[in-house]
Amino acid sequence: MDEEPREADHGSPVDGIQARHAVIRGGARGSVTSEAHGSHCHARKTPEQADRFTVGGMSAAATDPDCLFCRIVAGEIPAEVVAETDTSLAFRDVSPQAPTHVLVVPRRHVADAGELADVSPTELAEVTLLARTVAQQEGLDGDYRLVFNTGPGAGQSVFHAHLHLLGGRAMKWPPG
Amino acid sequence: MDEEPREADHGSPVDGIQARHAVIRGGARGSVTSEAHGSHCHARKTPEQADRFTVGGMSAAATDPDCLFCRIVAGEIPAEVVAETDTSLAFRDVSPQAPTHVLVVPRRHVADAGELADVSPTELAEVTLLARTVAQQEGLDGDYRLVFNTGPGAGQSVFHAHLHLLGGRAMKWPPG
Repeated sequence: MDEEPREADHGSPVDGIQARHAVIRGGARGSVTSEAHGSHCHARKTPEQADRFTVGGMSAAATDPDCLFCRIVAGEIPAEVVAETDTSLAFRDVSPQAPTHVLVVPRRHVADAGELADVSPTELAEVTLLARTVAQQEGLDGDYRLVFNTGPGAGQSVFHAHLHLLGGRAMKWPPG
Repeated sequence: MDEEPREADHGSPVDGIQARHAVIRGGARGSVTSEAHGSHCHARKTPEQADRFTVGGMSAAATDPDCLFCRIVAGEIPAEVVAETDTSLAFRDVSPQAPTHVLVVPRRHVADAGELADVSPTELAEVTLLARTVAQQEGLDGDYRLVFNTGPGAGQSVFHAHLHLLGGRAMKWPPG
């Protein structure tokens, strides 16, 4: 029986950020709820920082105002940010699947890992290296798993490339 | 009970290539068994191609003669190669965990994803893009999961960076 797929797995969210996404998207177009600006934002950028990033750092086309992760990058929606660079941001998954479960995203809006590799190898490397930095910060002692989901069938629910960093427990096989 | 870790998971190999690795490493130092040169090698390089790669493409320091994946790259050990570029090679995992389960490796010997990102962002991108190409070849219709294990606690058993590409079935969550 252990080899059989478990029904519970098929019925549960395929991506840890799915539930939050569904909640936030409902009120996200053109306005931000007061909750999204609440005090549980751990490392939100100031509007000035967001402006500098958006105007000075990259073209307007590189962000999508309806994208959850673009809005987290811009500081419009709170997230527990654990590390960042000029091109990438790392924040905790709201539905963690391991003692450490962090998402690392490029600030630039791209749909998935392949598009990020196409558009900017450097930023793909920076996302990967920021994940390693976070793994060190979290004391994972060199043991961690990195996962990119592409497409809804693989569990992607926000179509802004994001690298899952998981660690702090023995990781099983297969990887989902 | 479904939420409890299952003992069978903890007892099984944490990485699909582990079993093969153990078998091959036993006789791999300084010699190659006849089996490794057998007719079930699907797309092995000729010695001339291996030489061109090793001598012309990169320094000797970029390969490790005791590394399973370096030896697959060099054509010394057979693998079912499905795609390749000048810098990367894609071949099927011998213990597939999904209808499509392919490993994409840089030809260059680096230990893990972080080291690859450090040493060559371009080659990290090429590995990622070759995975996307294979996903297209395999008819995965845009749905696939990419996994890099770093460290034995995360399931890495060959310390040459390798990206797992999985698809062809619904992928579950968590990813192991």
